Amino acid sequence: MDPDHESMKRAAAEAAVEMVEDGMIVGIGTGSTAAYAITALGEAVEAGLEITGVPTSDAARYRAKTAGITISDLDMVDGIDLAIDGADQACEGTLIKGGGGAHTRERIVDAAADQFIAIVDERKVVDQLDAPIPLEVLPAARHLVQAAVDDLGGTATVRTSGSTDGPAYTERGMLLIDADMGMIEDASAVAKELDTLPGVIDHGLFIGLADSLLVGTPDGVEREW
Amino acid sequence: MDPDHESMKRAAAEAAVEMVEDGMIVGIGTGSTAAYAITALGEAVEAGLEITGVPTSDAARYRAKTAGITISDLDMVDGIDLAIDGADQACEGTLIKGGGGAHTRERIVDAAADQFIAIVDERKVVDQLDAPIPLEVLPAARHLVQAAVDDLGGTATVRTSGSTDGPAYTERGMLLIDADMGMIEDASAVAKELDTLPGVIDHGLFIGLADSLLVGTPDGVEREW
Repeated sequence: MDPDHESMKRAAAEAAVEMVEDGMIVGIGTGSTAAYAITALGEAVEAGLEITGVPTSDAARYRAKTAGITISDLDMVDGIDLAIDGADQACEGTLIKGGGGAHTRERIVDAAADQFIAIVDERKVVDQLDAPIPLEVLPAARHLVQAAVDDLGGTATVRTSGSTDGPAYTERGMLLIDADMGMIEDASAVAKELDTLPGVIDHGLFIGLADSLLVGTPDGVEREW
Repeated sequence: MDPDHESMKRAAAEAAVEMVEDGMIVGIGTGSTAAYAITALGEAVEAGLEITGVPTSDAARYRAKTAGITISDLDMVDGIDLAIDGADQACEGTLIKGGGGAHTRERIVDAAADQFIAIVDERKVVDQLDAPIPLEVLPAARHLVQAAVDDLGGTATVRTSGSTDGPAYTERGMLLIDADMGMIEDASAVAKELDTLPGVIDHGLFIGLADSLLVGTPDGVEREW
């Protein structure tokens, strides 16, 4: 754990949580940066803030429950006021998400939010996107999707688990294939291709979804967009 | 990777594969020791052996496919002649399995086999079982099962993933809870308790299922039972 980057993540998370108002339905992100937001939200709830959280994953749900946040589900609320979620990489309005394996549900919650605040530390902000794009994939489509990514000029790697034998599974029992597309010149074109691939439940390209990007830097939190 | 123990695993696996005969339906285990058996089976198939493999997990299935083994499913074959599978710990006819996260399907395949050969290296053979018992658990039952294990005098740990945020999921999108029951005096009694817990799909105690235990040792492969 790099203490400086952890501090930057926490600062960005806390800045986002300051935007949460009493009575809001709040989308709750997955991953290590969003975890700082959950901690800060929990402290605000402890201090009297009344909100309902809608988690983007079971991991986020348990974390939020532990933090003392009242939890609901997207299909149980009338929309989401504000979503706070992390990202693996960010560039000019586009995010790559899915490092935590939760991008399918993250997109549903983040896209449903009136306002989606993305939070990252400065390492995640790049001039051009080049991180592998996580795909959530039906197990039966594994080879089809690998071949399709190959045809698109990319390299597909099935994500393996550190704590069970073989592949890492999502909370739906699906595979994660990380599609390294090299330098991504035209994210919209790549997203369009990935959207049409049979067997791909969702990819990690979030284009124009985040209303703001808050970046933790050594000099404090900056708003990138 | 400890080269000596890897050699012992491989030797036990190869000894088990020598028991495979032409025309057999072979249950194919999950985990690092079973992976050596898959490699050896693939080499035997390459040399002319005709078998059909029935994998215990998707991880085993892909490994077997890569090794060139003809694959089927349990519901597509008329029984299994011989199953070869590893174990986390072994003592007097009882195995603890599930370190690979696949024990639910492993039990189905291993129990369906006319003969089930367990393969381990010598570190796995103990005088008394004391490894945590893996439980495959419905996510909604997480806290119930943790509390139930606690009531039984054990300690329950939700297995986390090294490559996604939060818990490790099985190929069915279920959780893995490792139930540390301390020294296991009476495995049958513990198994009976775990069998009745709502939300537990299966536990990793395999009592009397393995017809033989082949143990890789520095002095060659020994048959423990």
